[in-house]
Amino acid sequence: MSDAVKFVLPDAELPRCWYNIQADLPFELPAVLHPGTKKPVGPDDLAPLFPMALIQQEVARERWIDIPEPVRDVYRLWRPSPLYRARRLEEALQTPARIYYKHEGVSPAGSHKPNTAVAQAFYNREAGVRRIATETGAGQWGSALAFAGQLFGIDVKIYMVRVSYDQKPYRRNLMETWGAKVVASPSPDTNAGRKVLAEDPGCSGSLGLAISEAVEDAVTSQTPTRYSLGSVLNHVLMHQTVIGLEAKRQLDLAGVYPDVVVACIGGGSNFAGFTYPFVADKLSGKASRLRVVAIEPAATPSLTRGVYAYDYGDTAMMAPIVKMYTLGHGFMPAPIHAGGLRYHGMASSICELYRAQLIEARAVQQLATFEAGVLFARCEGIVPAPEAAHAIRGAIDEAIRCREEGRREVIAFNLSGHGHFDMASYEKYLAGKLEDYELPQADIDRAVAALPKV
Amino acid sequence: MSDAVKFVLPDAELPRCWYNIQADLPFELPAVLHPGTKKPVGPDDLAPLFPMALIQQEVARERWIDIPEPVRDVYRLWRPSPLYRARRLEEALQTPARIYYKHEGVSPAGSHKPNTAVAQAFYNREAGVRRIATETGAGQWGSALAFAGQLFGIDVKIYMVRVSYDQKPYRRNLMETWGAKVVASPSPDTNAGRKVLAEDPGCSGSLGLAISEAVEDAVTSQTPTRYSLGSVLNHVLMHQTVIGLEAKRQLDLAGVYPDVVVACIGGGSNFAGFTYPFVADKLSGKASRLRVVAIEPAATPSLTRGVYAYDYGDTAMMAPIVKMYTLGHGFMPAPIHAGGLRYHGMASSICELYRAQLIEARAVQQLATFEAGVLFARCEGIVPAPEAAHAIRGAIDEAIRCREEGRREVIAFNLSGHGHFDMASYEKYLAGKLEDYELPQADIDRAVAALPKV
Repeated sequence: MSDAVKFVLPDAELPRCWYNIQADLPFELPAVLHPGTKKPVGPDDLAPLFPMALIQQEVARERWIDIPEPVRDVYRLWRPSPLYRARRLEEALQTPARIYYKHEGVSPAGSHKPNTAVAQAFYNREAGVRRIATETGAGQWGSALAFAGQLFGIDVKIYMVRVSYDQKPYRRNLMETWGAKVVASPSPDTNAGRKVLAEDPGCSGSLGLAISEAVEDAVTSQTPTRYSLGSVLNHVLMHQTVIGLEAKRQLDLAGVYPDVVVACIGGGSNFAGFTYPFVADKLSGKASRLRVVAIEPAATPSLTRGVYAYDYGDTAMMAPIVKMYTLGHGFMPAPIHAGGLRYHGMASSICELYRAQLIEARAVQQLATFEAGVLFARCEGIVPAPEAAHAIRGAIDEAIRCREEGRREVIAFNLSGHGHFDMASYEKYLAGKLEDYELPQADIDRAVAALPKV
Repeated sequence: MSDAVKFVLPDAELPRCWYNIQADLPFELPAVLHPGTKKPVGPDDLAPLFPMALIQQEVARERWIDIPEPVRDVYRLWRPSPLYRARRLEEALQTPARIYYKHEGVSPAGSHKPNTAVAQAFYNREAGVRRIATETGAGQWGSALAFAGQLFGIDVKIYMVRVSYDQKPYRRNLMETWGAKVVASPSPDTNAGRKVLAEDPGCSGSLGLAISEAVEDAVTSQTPTRYSLGSVLNHVLMHQTVIGLEAKRQLDLAGVYPDVVVACIGGGSNFAGFTYPFVADKLSGKASRLRVVAIEPAATPSLTRGVYAYDYGDTAMMAPIVKMYTLGHGFMPAPIHAGGLRYHGMASSICELYRAQLIEARAVQQLATFEAGVLFARCEGIVPAPEAAHAIRGAIDEAIRCREEGRREVIAFNLSGHGHFDMASYEKYLAGKLEDYELPQADIDRAVAALPKV
C-alpha cells in the first residue's frame, strides 16, 4: 500500500475507450417506449434529437467504445483527474478505514458533466450540427455544454429554469462567458414557453418545462439544431466511465482495491461513471463482495422510496417512457440544496442493477449532508458541491461503521464537483437556516397515481 | 519540442526548497524603516507581528531555503500544478508564437495565495501561535489564510473591507466554511475601527484601514495573536517561487526555454513567484536575452507611473516604510475590477530589478483585459480571475507582436487564479457596463506630495 495522498496518472494513461456495461449485464434492459405511440422507440424516432453516432451508442453491445482523439484531446485539459487519499478526514473521524476520493471538480466547468458534454459536442459536430439546444436546472449541465460547444464551434442555446436564472446569476454568467445564449424558462422563444407565460407571466419554471422548450427548439428551429441531455441515457452514463476507469488504475497505484464504492445519484450519470468499471468486476465474479452504494437526497428518494414502473422522463410527457424507479413525472421536488440530484426518475441500467441487488441505495438528509461537506472542506481543503456532499456523507457513514466494527476497509467515492457556485447554500447552512425535509408518502402516492398506462 | 498540451510533474518533483533571490541580486535592498522612529527596523521590531522564522527569512541570504515537510505535505493537495500549452489560443491569434501557462487556480482557495499562506500558518504553529489576524480586500488572501489556518489548527480572524464584505458574500462564505471569523472593516472590534465608525457609521472601508485593524488585533489581543501579510514582503515572495521552479522544469519537459515570461503585478508576490527562478538565469548570465514583463492595471500603475521613494506600506502609516515605486500611501484606487492588483506600492526587490532594467512593466486597460480573459476562457476553457486576465492580456500582446514580426518565440505566463468568484465583473463586461479608466496625473501628484520625509 502506498503512503502517498495523491495519485496522478500520466497523460499516456488517459483512457482510450469508454466502458459499456450493456455488454456485461446479466439481463436485458426493458424496452424504451415512444411517448406518443407507447411502442418501442427505434433509431428513427430519435434522429430529430440526436446524431446517429449517439443513438447507436445508446443500444451498443460492445464492451469497449473508442473515445475519438479530438475528445481525448479536450479531456487532456483536466484529465486524468487526481485521486486522493483523505488522510486528514480519516484522522478527524478516527476511523481505521482508508478513504480515497476521485476529484472531478478540476474540470473547467467544475464537475463531471464535461465528460459527456465534450463527447456529445464532438459527435454533433461530426454530423454537421452547428447548434444545440438544452435545458439546465442548477446550471452544472448548462455550463458543461456551453464550454464543450464553444470548443467545437457549436452555438449553444440554454433554457435555464427561471428560479435558477434569477437566483444563480454567476452560473448564468459562466455560460455566457463561454459564448452560450441563456434564456429564462418559460421563455417567449417557444410555443411551450409562450403558452405558460400567457397563463402565468411570473411562472418560476421547472426542469420539465425547460426540457419541453429545448426539445421544441431542436425540432422546430430554422437553423438545424439538435438536443442534448446531461444524464439518464445509456450513452451519457457510458461517457462518464472515464472516471471509474481512471480511479481503478489509481487505486492500483495506491496498492488497494475498494471494499465499498460510493457515489451520489440523481439521474445516474455520475454514479454510473464512477462505479460501473467496478460493477464490471462484480458481474464477472472478480470482486463478488464489493459493495456499491448510491446516495440520494431524502427529499428525492427515487431508488429508496420510488415505485418500479414505466414513466416519462420529463414532466411535460414529451420524453420517452422508461421502466424505472420513479417518484412520478409530475413530482415537484422540495427546494432543498441538492442541485442536480432533484430528479424524479433514474437511468434504466441503474434501476435494473438495483432490482437485482447488485447495488445498494441510501437516502440522506440535508443537514447531515452539509455537515459532511463542511467537515470535508475543513480537512481536505476542497469545498464540495452539494451533490458531491451527498457522496461524502455516504463515505463518512461507512467510515464511522468501520470505526465501530473495527474494520480497516477501503472506501472510495467520487467528488463529482466543487461548490464555488453554491456558496449561498453554505451560507444558509452555517447560519442555521437549512432544515431537513421528510417527503410525505402522500406526495409520492399522488404522483405515482398519474403514471402512464402501458 | 513536445507536442503535448499539458505538462504534469510527478509528486517526487515537488520542489524541496524555495528560491531566495536575495542571494543573487547584484545590489543591496534599501533598508526598511520603522514607521515611528524612521530608523532601520530590526528583528525585535517585527517580533510582535511575525514568528522569528519568517523574520529570519525576510533577511536571509541563502539561495535555497528548505520547505518544511508539513508544508510540502499540504502543497501536495494541488502541487505540482499543471503547465499547459495554449494551442487553441495560439490558433485563435494566428500567431507563430508558442504560448505556455502555469495554472495556479487549481489550489483549494483558487489562486497562488495558499503557497505562502500554508507556509506562514506552519511557521506560526511551530512558534506556538494559535491565532492569526489579517485583512483582505478582494478576498483571495483571506480565503487562502482561512484554508491554511484550518489545516494547522490556527484560528483566523479576517478584517474584510466593508465594500467587499457586502458585495462578495460568496468569498466571505468560503472563508467561513473553512472556519475563519470574518468581520466587515471598519469593525467594532478594534479602536481603529470604532473610531472610524463613530465618525462615519456607513464607512465602506479601505485596505489600509483593514490592515490597521488586523495589526492592532495582533498586537493587543488577549489570546496571543500574530499578523500575516499576503504579498510585498520578501518571505512572501520567496514562498511563491515554487511556481516558477516547477514551471522551469515543466518547460524543460516541453523542450523549450521562454523568450519572454509574463505575470500580473499588484504587491508583487505572484510576479516574483513565477518569474524569479527565470530572473536567476538572467542574473547569472545563462539567459541574458530573456525578457521579464510585469503587467499592471492602468488604474494603479505603480511601476509605470509611480515615483521611486520611501513610503508607507499601508494607508494608515502603521506599516514599515519601504523604498519603492509608489502612487502614495494615500492613493485611493478607482473601482476597477482588478481584484488584488489595486495596491499603491510594490515589493522592494521588484522595484530594484525594475530600476536596474532587468525587468519591464506595462500597464493595460480594463476593457482590453476582460477581452483577453473572455478569449482565453473560450479557447482554453478556464475562466481567469481578473488579476490573471492582466497576465493573459500581456501574453496575447506579445503573441500578436510575434505574429506581426513573424517570430516563433516562446511566451510563458502565470494564470494566478480562476474567476469563479468574480463572475459579477464578467457579467458587467459582457453587458457593456465596464469602462476604461485613465488615472489623472493630478491624483498621483497629490498622493505623492504626502510621502514621508526620511
